[in-house]
Amino acid sequence: MYRYLIVLVTLCVSVNGWGQEVPKFDLSVRFADNFETAIPRPEQDKIAEEKLAALQKKKGKRPNIVWLVVDDMGFGDPGTYGGGALAGASTPNIDKLAAKGMKLTSTYSQQTCTPTRSAILTGRLPVRTGLIRPILAGDKITVNPWADEISLPKLLSEAGYFTLLTGKWHVGESIGMRPHDIGFDEYYGYYPAQKEISQRVDSRRFPGLVLNPKRMAAFEAVGPTDYLTHGFKGGKTEELKQIKSIEDMSKADQVLTNFTVQRIKELAAGEKPFFIEHCFMKVHSDNFAHPDYAGKSEAKYPYKDGVHEVDAHVGAILKTLDDAGVLDNTLVFFTSDNGPQMDGWPDAGYTPFRGAKGTTWEGGVRVPGIAYWEGMIAPGRTSDGLFDLMDLFGVGLNIAGVSTDKLPTDKYYDFIDQTSFLLVEDGRSKREAVYFWWGKELMACRMKEYKVHTKVIMPQAPHMHIDLSTVHDVGLAPWFFNLYLDPKEEMTVGHRLDPWMATVLGKLKEHGATFKNYPPKNIGL
Amino acid sequence: MYRYLIVLVTLCVSVNGWGQEVPKFDLSVRFADNFETAIPRPEQDKIAEEKLAALQKKKGKRPNIVWLVVDDMGFGDPGTYGGGALAGASTPNIDKLAAKGMKLTSTYSQQTCTPTRSAILTGRLPVRTGLIRPILAGDKITVNPWADEISLPKLLSEAGYFTLLTGKWHVGESIGMRPHDIGFDEYYGYYPAQKEISQRVDSRRFPGLVLNPKRMAAFEAVGPTDYLTHGFKGGKTEELKQIKSIEDMSKADQVLTNFTVQRIKELAAGEKPFFIEHCFMKVHSDNFAHPDYAGKSEAKYPYKDGVHEVDAHVGAILKTLDDAGVLDNTLVFFTSDNGPQMDGWPDAGYTPFRGAKGTTWEGGVRVPGIAYWEGMIAPGRTSDGLFDLMDLFGVGLNIAGVSTDKLPTDKYYDFIDQTSFLLVEDGRSKREAVYFWWGKELMACRMKEYKVHTKVIMPQAPHMHIDLSTVHDVGLAPWFFNLYLDPKEEMTVGHRLDPWMATVLGKLKEHGATFKNYPPKNIGL
Repeated sequence: MYRYLIVLVTLCVSVNGWGQEVPKFDLSVRFADNFETAIPRPEQDKIAEEKLAALQKKKGKRPNIVWLVVDDMGFGDPGTYGGGALAGASTPNIDKLAAKGMKLTSTYSQQTCTPTRSAILTGRLPVRTGLIRPILAGDKITVNPWADEISLPKLLSEAGYFTLLTGKWHVGESIGMRPHDIGFDEYYGYYPAQKEISQRVDSRRFPGLVLNPKRMAAFEAVGPTDYLTHGFKGGKTEELKQIKSIEDMSKADQVLTNFTVQRIKELAAGEKPFFIEHCFMKVHSDNFAHPDYAGKSEAKYPYKDGVHEVDAHVGAILKTLDDAGVLDNTLVFFTSDNGPQMDGWPDAGYTPFRGAKGTTWEGGVRVPGIAYWEGMIAPGRTSDGLFDLMDLFGVGLNIAGVSTDKLPTDKYYDFIDQTSFLLVEDGRSKREAVYFWWGKELMACRMKEYKVHTKVIMPQAPHMHIDLSTVHDVGLAPWFFNLYLDPKEEMTVGHRLDPWMATVLGKLKEHGATFKNYPPKNIGL
Repeated sequence: MYRYLIVLVTLCVSVNGWGQEVPKFDLSVRFADNFETAIPRPEQDKIAEEKLAALQKKKGKRPNIVWLVVDDMGFGDPGTYGGGALAGASTPNIDKLAAKGMKLTSTYSQQTCTPTRSAILTGRLPVRTGLIRPILAGDKITVNPWADEISLPKLLSEAGYFTLLTGKWHVGESIGMRPHDIGFDEYYGYYPAQKEISQRVDSRRFPGLVLNPKRMAAFEAVGPTDYLTHGFKGGKTEELKQIKSIEDMSKADQVLTNFTVQRIKELAAGEKPFFIEHCFMKVHSDNFAHPDYAGKSEAKYPYKDGVHEVDAHVGAILKTLDDAGVLDNTLVFFTSDNGPQMDGWPDAGYTPFRGAKGTTWEGGVRVPGIAYWEGMIAPGRTSDGLFDLMDLFGVGLNIAGVSTDKLPTDKYYDFIDQTSFLLVEDGRSKREAVYFWWGKELMACRMKEYKVHTKVIMPQAPHMHIDLSTVHDVGLAPWFFNLYLDPKEEMTVGHRLDPWMATVLGKLKEHGATFKNYPPKNIGL
């Protein structure tokens, strides 16, 4: 797949001073200067390639891709990840998806929304694209970060796909930054996060805004739109319906699911393969229960009713794919854009890990990740192999048959093509490390089961991981955790327990060095 | 079932000042002065009763009962509870047991070993039997707590069962306190906890003992036996084999599983139904990997290899039951005696919750609980209904057909008969509350999804929940958590979030009041 695959595939050994081959700790290889290092698995890749070729021969068209991206759902929220009823909301449809598909237990997002959403569409870290933190009302972006980025939907469209984003965007709503400007053929949804809209109508939580007409007018001048928007690439953009009440807001996800369901029916009957990124508004705070779901979760709290509702929508979308007869030609991937937003607790999710959204602790970045593809991904698989959500970019290119030759050589790409990890029955991850950024700060690196922190976010109150937290440099030694022994990152023991601290730190530094030739982009955020 | 079932089954309503029926928060009813209150579910009980009667008619004998009790395994260790490979050790057999059986997510133990092990055999809280904390070398017990207790194996033996305890005992090894003294027909195992034996042979961890002959002689004079012991009720007690090395210690669980497997084969072919409590030595610290399992877990650390080994033994015991053709007439229950023992980390397990063994936080007392019974418990069930491990006493009596009339009226019983919760497809828990004791202190109460703490254990280092912790009275308000919103017990909000603080506190006090008529027993611990 890679441009420079002609480089000799290095075996997982190196040669020591006596000319003997010795096993290496870091099994990954840099195939090209501007691509993230990956673990070579040529046999596995070949099996996946053959599986895909056989399917295409049978189906006569490329596979569809459907991403289901929940907003701020915690790793521990779905039952299959240890939550469910225990955490106040059972999730039968998500659990079923995991049981019938592949459950990944080490899937990583960025630590907030905009960074993750842009990273998975560009295959590049936020610090490279400039989209380093959520865009909020009042932010002035001086450079359109998308101007020189090549998005996955753009590449898929060019390869014959119909590409649609339904739901939340939150990566900029000015012209040039909208979904249908950056590559999607169609967009149907709300640009901002749930809370940014609901603050306009919720006089109980935001009395200082809603009850003050002058202040509201000032906010509307800079604030994000509260319209359901329908846009087409190169065509018109319509503002369909304004959110005028909490009840409107509560029903936003039903509106979005209805649309995705309708479009799946139409697209499945068409000639083109399709790529749909369905982005839920829920369960980002502030959650308002849809009347049909209010009190339906075990906890009977808005967040939990929201989890229950999202689960029902997942079921509805899967059922539509099934009814349309395309489940065996569609890769479905379910995930969340970051850890739970604890600062808004109790309107927040559950992670068993330390930290939350806004931090580079596991609680902020480790998210559910379920891959489902009838007949192509063996049911009931589970893997702790590393998977960065940016890898979805590589998987997308691969199954759509888009060559990485289409990508520029003057940009660094952080994704890894993990198609064979997913499709081969005993497939293993090709990712050796995940890097964790917080704005412009390189904070931490996970390599195998180890994680090293050079800076840490410390909350000053049990749940205030964004609003009342501080950034600290670590002491004499980096904070070093073996996540298999200490999933909650409580017991840093330097290099006294494991000998790999310096090695993993070296991997982090090697990553940092990629910015010398490929400098970060500054868009004024 | 209960002695006083003749009391009118109160409906889940009460009458208000205007004579109107209003719903009650506390749905439980006190059937008799000396029995824990239970939620009446007469229809559910009837279905379970009919199911059991039909099975007995078919089988011609009472069902077998097999308890699998792991030592110090964390709630999060098994894959099905959110751990597995993610926490360094995959558990395919335990996961399969959950998938084919009923996974309970709110099963509670006592906060340490001896208290749990005695409570499940007596149906009574440790503070009532006097067995309030682990018995350790040097302890002087002034009263035999078993002298006036009536154990489950005693009652089952009288009802025609063959009763066997294999493995760890740790509830006293002096005459009168041994398993075959207190009701078991046969005992095969080690009296003390793993660490109490291995400290005699591990010169690296215990040089001051192992390398000092005089000190060792003094220890042997008061210390627990390190022999594999085989005893029979009213018959001889043999010391079979001494633990002489770390390798002997590492193989202890294989020895135990071999015995249980052999006895299942023999007992399944016999006339009598059997009750086997199989108590693993692992994964109590100090763990030494059996040579066959060393490095076989993902983490390749002794604790994790131990989890992997225990999982294999669970598989072997289940296969034996299957091969013997008795799975459809055997209730299997898998659990742990308390939360992970974090003070010995990294030789320790994983809980997603706050706290650990030795505390009354969820991390100390919430344990895995899987009920499996082919054809009698619907596969794939999961429930967050409350289940106290003492309820196994009630379930045992019920399915063995033993009337609670056999129990004395001058003792208080804390178990609830939860047979119908397990056996009825949509069965619900009959338990309204669980009470948490720490030695002689009544600490906390969980009622529905709420938990109130009147005293809390605070560690003075991240993982030192026993050795470096302190006991604190709570401040002005009890610490009050809604576990559905806050499974990690981080955000106490008094009564500001939920109106039930005083009600749950009232339940705790009501429990405390049972000690007026049924005073606690003091055995000198």
